[in-house]
Amino acid sequence: MSDTGDNDRGSEEIAAIEDSDIYADDGSVRSDFLMHVGAAIADRDTIYLRKHVAGLHASELGDLLEAIQPEQRLALVSLLGKEFDLAALTEVDEAIRLDIVEHLPNEQIAEAIGEMDSDDAVYILEDLDQEDQEEILAKLPFTERVRLRRSLDYPESTAGRRMQTEFVAVPPFWTVGQTIDYMREDEDLPDSFTQIFVIDPTFKLLGTVDLDRVLRTKRSVKIDAIMRDTSHSVPAEMDQEEAAQLFEQYDLLSAAVVDDNGRLVGVLTIDDVVDVIQEEAEEDLLRLSGVGDEELSDSVAEASRSRVPWLFVNSMTACISASVIGLFDATIQQIVALAILMPIVAGMGGNAGSQTMTVTVRALATRGLDIHNAPRIIRREAGVGLLNGMIFGSLIGLVAGLWFQDPDIGGIIATAMLINMMAAALAGILIPLLLDKSGADPAVSSAVFVTAITDVTGFFSFLGIATWWFQVT
Amino acid sequence: MSDTGDNDRGSEEIAAIEDSDIYADDGSVRSDFLMHVGAAIADRDTIYLRKHVAGLHASELGDLLEAIQPEQRLALVSLLGKEFDLAALTEVDEAIRLDIVEHLPNEQIAEAIGEMDSDDAVYILEDLDQEDQEEILAKLPFTERVRLRRSLDYPESTAGRRMQTEFVAVPPFWTVGQTIDYMREDEDLPDSFTQIFVIDPTFKLLGTVDLDRVLRTKRSVKIDAIMRDTSHSVPAEMDQEEAAQLFEQYDLLSAAVVDDNGRLVGVLTIDDVVDVIQEEAEEDLLRLSGVGDEELSDSVAEASRSRVPWLFVNSMTACISASVIGLFDATIQQIVALAILMPIVAGMGGNAGSQTMTVTVRALATRGLDIHNAPRIIRREAGVGLLNGMIFGSLIGLVAGLWFQDPDIGGIIATAMLINMMAAALAGILIPLLLDKSGADPAVSSAVFVTAITDVTGFFSFLGIATWWFQVT
Repeated sequence: MSDTGDNDRGSEEIAAIEDSDIYADDGSVRSDFLMHVGAAIADRDTIYLRKHVAGLHASELGDLLEAIQPEQRLALVSLLGKEFDLAALTEVDEAIRLDIVEHLPNEQIAEAIGEMDSDDAVYILEDLDQEDQEEILAKLPFTERVRLRRSLDYPESTAGRRMQTEFVAVPPFWTVGQTIDYMREDEDLPDSFTQIFVIDPTFKLLGTVDLDRVLRTKRSVKIDAIMRDTSHSVPAEMDQEEAAQLFEQYDLLSAAVVDDNGRLVGVLTIDDVVDVIQEEAEEDLLRLSGVGDEELSDSVAEASRSRVPWLFVNSMTACISASVIGLFDATIQQIVALAILMPIVAGMGGNAGSQTMTVTVRALATRGLDIHNAPRIIRREAGVGLLNGMIFGSLIGLVAGLWFQDPDIGGIIATAMLINMMAAALAGILIPLLLDKSGADPAVSSAVFVTAITDVTGFFSFLGIATWWFQVT
Repeated sequence: MSDTGDNDRGSEEIAAIEDSDIYADDGSVRSDFLMHVGAAIADRDTIYLRKHVAGLHASELGDLLEAIQPEQRLALVSLLGKEFDLAALTEVDEAIRLDIVEHLPNEQIAEAIGEMDSDDAVYILEDLDQEDQEEILAKLPFTERVRLRRSLDYPESTAGRRMQTEFVAVPPFWTVGQTIDYMREDEDLPDSFTQIFVIDPTFKLLGTVDLDRVLRTKRSVKIDAIMRDTSHSVPAEMDQEEAAQLFEQYDLLSAAVVDDNGRLVGVLTIDDVVDVIQEEAEEDLLRLSGVGDEELSDSVAEASRSRVPWLFVNSMTACISASVIGLFDATIQQIVALAILMPIVAGMGGNAGSQTMTVTVRALATRGLDIHNAPRIIRREAGVGLLNGMIFGSLIGLVAGLWFQDPDIGGIIATAMLINMMAAALAGILIPLLLDKSGADPAVSSAVFVTAITDVTGFFSFLGIATWWFQVT
């Protein structure tokens, strides 16, 4: 989230950190460093902490906070005092962030937030309750307060909430020379930027100029001669995921955020977008396995709560599958081999279905799958189901026939597997497609339906065919 | 991959595209646009295609290529002729890229590649066979050829392979003024850049300066007074995933790529890193569901092949689970209710295990889980397993007891579920951790082991306890 650290620190400090990299080869924080920090916290050795911890990059300090014992975190923050870089809080789990913020005096938060880029400030403010938020905002200078309020007024997960409200904007009639002089003199610029915006007196966005374009152009040239039209500006209400797709599609480094009237209100930068991409990919992965909003720092009760809904729905569908088996209890009593083999039919169908489903959900998320190629992909998946059904139907049929010395059993399980793997393929692609079309998130609920279908189809086809074949009454 | 399109096109063209956005609201290419393009291809209407297709952004052209019928693709490319923007090929599935490249004359490829940024050029060249690669390289100017060869010499998926070899580098004793003048006059600069590098006469990297820093500094200041030490330079041999983590951690926009001797050989940019992040997230997701390297454009045979290995391993473990059931055939014959209920025990364990496993694999991939917090997370997962085991053991025990009017069955399934969900939790976290520690990719093989353990434990505990309780002999 933050890029303030790098710019604020002098070169000597960075060199010092490079010499004493805090990470071990596997990417975790070095154990000896953790030990030293732990000892320094226990000894209240503020000299050591100021020297070796206060100068860390915000994301390194964040990793350190996550690596030390939970009870050491508040102690470290209070020992660092004013030298604690609050930007580190944008790099830690929400639970840790809230815990620390709640224990910090609002004065210190307000002071730190006043110095942060607005996107980092909002990231910390948005989790606080209304009262603390107001108290902190009240301590800030007027313009700062107005800016942060504007971001906070946009709904969560929108471009407006994620944007940075500091930006460089110039009128179109300025020359490149004027623009450069302005940037040399103005003290109030964002900490880092890659693009200048061109606006009219009402702040309506006219265009953008990349910094390299400014540097490559003679001083006498007017800005409007080198500005680009902003075909990729982002409405403040746009969902952050949609904005991230714009960045990916057009390889943007930053994009203007505009309000309903086309007025420039902020800038969305690629570092925030990278975080969004990571979050969305993680969300899809966790949703597919039925895990809710969950963080590593969650307690047993919180983690349990995030997983119970999915397990509950699955226990319902498992009971339905069981009742399908119950229809054939007479058959099973006569031929116990069926009970032994039936989980293979259901399980292989479940695996094949989840393969197809994962490919489909991912393709929908990355917009690789749409109405134009859906018919082709459905045909392909049906083909894959048929082919793999024949391969594994034959294989398992052979194994089962030899195992129970009964070719009939082999033939029955082979047929049931072929049927179930076809059903798995169709369920795996059609269910996510239908959920997506109806506006639901296919990652959330596809797996429940797919598993239910492969279980029911597997048990019903296998036991049903056997009952018919062996004429059990 | 490419950002050339935006800079090359004039503002009028961009405005025209904005007016006629090629995308529908759901993000797919607009159907009427596809129809017009299809008709134009059929009519060999090069005027329409040059006007409405040749000017598209590379990524839009890529989406169009993926959306039209496979047989139209080569026709479109050949109708566009020299106006076909090869950068679009960096935006399409590998199969489509290879198909088109194989049908293009090497002269045209060489010419287009000479104008591309080197990272895009390498992206297209690396898939070609040795012979075509050499023929195309031979047609390029000397410096270009040397640069591309250098990238291609680095192994796949390294920073060296993904880097761009065009960059701006200046000596430390230049002033800001000299640097700006150089950039104004040199025609041979990269298409876009955000950072300039500071090097000594042997190309050894001394530091970097962000463009905004250059613009904010007076002309008389020396570069070495404003340069930053490059603590985040990337060795060319570094794996691209590791490099991506550096970008995320330090919010980099670009990073110097250096060879073994610390000499600057290229620059890695955030747009390539975003692609890497997407690819890696996708890989984890697909691996967890047992899907190999697969693309939407793959044929039935290719897709089948990517999924058979996983299904095969699963069919083996399914047979092992079945043989566990076989141990208790006498019990099942006496009490058919057990056969009806046993898939619930195994299935719920499988679901709980895959929840824990997904959380673990994701935490390992993002380095959130390491040796410092592993003991805590293992304890937490055991706690979650115990808690959810008690919840769902009681629930299913109650349902089963009422269903079969037999409190013994209810008690037995409740106990077995508690055991299996504890086993699932431990398998779900320990197996990925052990695989990771032994150097294997936990995303690839965790699920097989976890499912095998929950199936075997589920069947064995449920049927075993029942056999002992009901004294079946």
